[in-house]
Amino acid sequence: MDTPLVMGLIGFGNIGSGLARTLAEREAEIRARSPRPLVLKTIADRDTETRRDAPYDHAQLQSDADAVLYDPEIQVVIELIGGIEPAHAFVRKALESGKHVVTANKALLAEHGAELLELAARNGVGLLFEAAVGGGIPIIRALQQGLAANEMTAVQGILNGTCNYILTRMSERGLPFDEALGEAQDLGYAEPDPTFDIEGHDTAHKTAILASLAFGMDIRPGDVFVEGITRIQPVDIQYARELGFRIKLLGIAKRAETGGPVEVRVHPTLTPAASPLGGVGGVYNAIMVDGRPIGPTMYYGQGAGPAATSSALISDLLALAADVGGFNAARDARLRIPSGQRRIKPMDELRTHYYIRFTMADRSGVMALIGAALAGHNVSIESMIQHRTMTPDGAATISIVTHQAVEADVQAAAREVEASNTSAGPAFVLRVEE
Amino acid sequence: MDTPLVMGLIGFGNIGSGLARTLAEREAEIRARSPRPLVLKTIADRDTETRRDAPYDHAQLQSDADAVLYDPEIQVVIELIGGIEPAHAFVRKALESGKHVVTANKALLAEHGAELLELAARNGVGLLFEAAVGGGIPIIRALQQGLAANEMTAVQGILNGTCNYILTRMSERGLPFDEALGEAQDLGYAEPDPTFDIEGHDTAHKTAILASLAFGMDIRPGDVFVEGITRIQPVDIQYARELGFRIKLLGIAKRAETGGPVEVRVHPTLTPAASPLGGVGGVYNAIMVDGRPIGPTMYYGQGAGPAATSSALISDLLALAADVGGFNAARDARLRIPSGQRRIKPMDELRTHYYIRFTMADRSGVMALIGAALAGHNVSIESMIQHRTMTPDGAATISIVTHQAVEADVQAAAREVEASNTSAGPAFVLRVEE
Repeated sequence: MDTPLVMGLIGFGNIGSGLARTLAEREAEIRARSPRPLVLKTIADRDTETRRDAPYDHAQLQSDADAVLYDPEIQVVIELIGGIEPAHAFVRKALESGKHVVTANKALLAEHGAELLELAARNGVGLLFEAAVGGGIPIIRALQQGLAANEMTAVQGILNGTCNYILTRMSERGLPFDEALGEAQDLGYAEPDPTFDIEGHDTAHKTAILASLAFGMDIRPGDVFVEGITRIQPVDIQYARELGFRIKLLGIAKRAETGGPVEVRVHPTLTPAASPLGGVGGVYNAIMVDGRPIGPTMYYGQGAGPAATSSALISDLLALAADVGGFNAARDARLRIPSGQRRIKPMDELRTHYYIRFTMADRSGVMALIGAALAGHNVSIESMIQHRTMTPDGAATISIVTHQAVEADVQAAAREVEASNTSAGPAFVLRVEE
Repeated sequence: MDTPLVMGLIGFGNIGSGLARTLAEREAEIRARSPRPLVLKTIADRDTETRRDAPYDHAQLQSDADAVLYDPEIQVVIELIGGIEPAHAFVRKALESGKHVVTANKALLAEHGAELLELAARNGVGLLFEAAVGGGIPIIRALQQGLAANEMTAVQGILNGTCNYILTRMSERGLPFDEALGEAQDLGYAEPDPTFDIEGHDTAHKTAILASLAFGMDIRPGDVFVEGITRIQPVDIQYARELGFRIKLLGIAKRAETGGPVEVRVHPTLTPAASPLGGVGGVYNAIMVDGRPIGPTMYYGQGAGPAATSSALISDLLALAADVGGFNAARDARLRIPSGQRRIKPMDELRTHYYIRFTMADRSGVMALIGAALAGHNVSIESMIQHRTMTPDGAATISIVTHQAVEADVQAAAREVEASNTSAGPAFVLRVEE
């Protein structure tokens, strides 16, 4: 069984060169765990000039992806260019040519996962993407295989290390958002343009993938309610702490009843400090999966970076190498998602606890006004703090946590308070997960 | 692809009937995730009379395991009787007859895992045991597959829910050990004879399995250093808390250098309260896996009980059902352990931080004596507390935490202090993990 598994890599950036480096450095160990050697024949990248920190020779490196896609000897295409196009066309071409695909491309999978899994199955090949969510954490395998016996009820997690680093620093040091972001950028944890991370879009992509796998639905990023972390103030974090919570950017997918609609949402969330997710700090990721019969489980690790991503990519390559007699993922019902099918619960109907921060003129009658607005929309208060910290213009900050309430009601009450003449700024709503 | 996967179950106790129940209750969902139906044809148990809370008919239930082992139609034997014999003979017979085996039997795997995996590979069948460690947590798959690209450096975990429940109650309520144990027994978390759990043997079995998979060595329970939790006193838990630690019964397997010897040990351990393992309370299990390149990862969930165990057993059955074209685990180098090979680091050579509680007559010179004994064995003190709580006979309790030291030196120093005429009881040594 020494026929090599011949691989072609498209995309030779940070992650791609990390993979090439790990494959070379760990060659002996990988060989010992594989029924056949993994051979990286060709690397394609538009940039063939920049020297990468990885062992490769110039003959291996091609400027045209076709050098990988049209090579009949290549059995596996590793796609690491990211983004939708041309990655989508490359992956389709590879699958249609009977090549397996291993990818870390969360945008592509979130948008076209169901379609591509179907195409892979039709062509008797595998589409593996352990690296797309949670870095090296084997969460995709857990959902597709280890937990396959379960009816999932909830998948929720800290899926973006940049945001978790910023929120951890805000929480530990009382830093304002901009300062924590600047620190993350200085350390290389945040991009020069951090929008995609801090506005929650990266988390939404990952949430769509996890939700699709957990609930067997074709859930797309457009189905996910998304709010980022840019409007969180130190006062929110402080009040959350006083109540025993941490604020975490969570990707949440839940289904209360068998066959019912799925909630899919990404937003900063008050999470109990003593809960498994509440304790996850820094750039780490963690995913809670709850199902019947298993109950709650959690998976934790580094969510990004070349090292963790290489671990996930190579686990997929080893899975392909082990399937020497014909690829079983292609026959495996657990690895499919019915294309186009989904049932999403409208965000307005969400029922949970809420945190609302009001910015009000420091006058009498303000509490009565807030109380009346909430009561008028069936929102009842569980706890309230009026902060001594004032804004520079003399306004007061009042934060409340509600009993269980409905999203539409909470938003209507918040808008009503904002519209009053004692309001001194927008109301800021966060959701609470127990 | 509708040929059913025909299964026979040996052992129809709590776990076996839980599995039968889950297979029936979740039939439609399981069918949707499987290329072929799972059919439970025969159940064997010596007790055919007691009515179980599971759907089965009397014709299915046989008193003789041969009704499963010698039925050529049965493709998978699910072994749930536990213990070494006759389980060992049954599993060997099944594998030799070309039947796949799914088992939750940690004792059998800890003692004979390498031999049985070899036998399975030789017969072209699978031996799957996700349920043997960590209940429903897919930790076996993570080690065999998801993390297969890594060189493991450490696997350590809370592997026994009974012990973790007892230690959590001692920590939260200041209960003495006996009282916490009694409570666990009342709640059904501890057996009437709890020895196997509280003395660490169950954890040692699971540690041997995890260590074997992580380091590719045939590590047996006899290779594992084992200490239970029965000697822990409330004062130890209190002092640990003051220093920011929790006391957890950990199963630990570590290898510092590539190709070097492996530490395998089970003992109550001072674990940082803020660490992922330190925060795991109650009956939950959690396993940290650290490797290169992935870094630290953690897996958390219910470690026992029919529900969690069923989830793991069915994930194995689904893996077998998906391998319709011939079983790939039999060809998969990642699923083997070289029989008989191991290199264990002697416990005496362990180097870590230590916690030592001395019980001493309340006289002057005691501190000097302890200090001299430790210094004489190259053990230096990091922190020390003399507790105000006295024992009834007027002895004082003095607890210290050492800098990194060597096990043999620490034990020798402890023995030296015990031998002095101011000693009023045995010295109690715990190990610290940072």
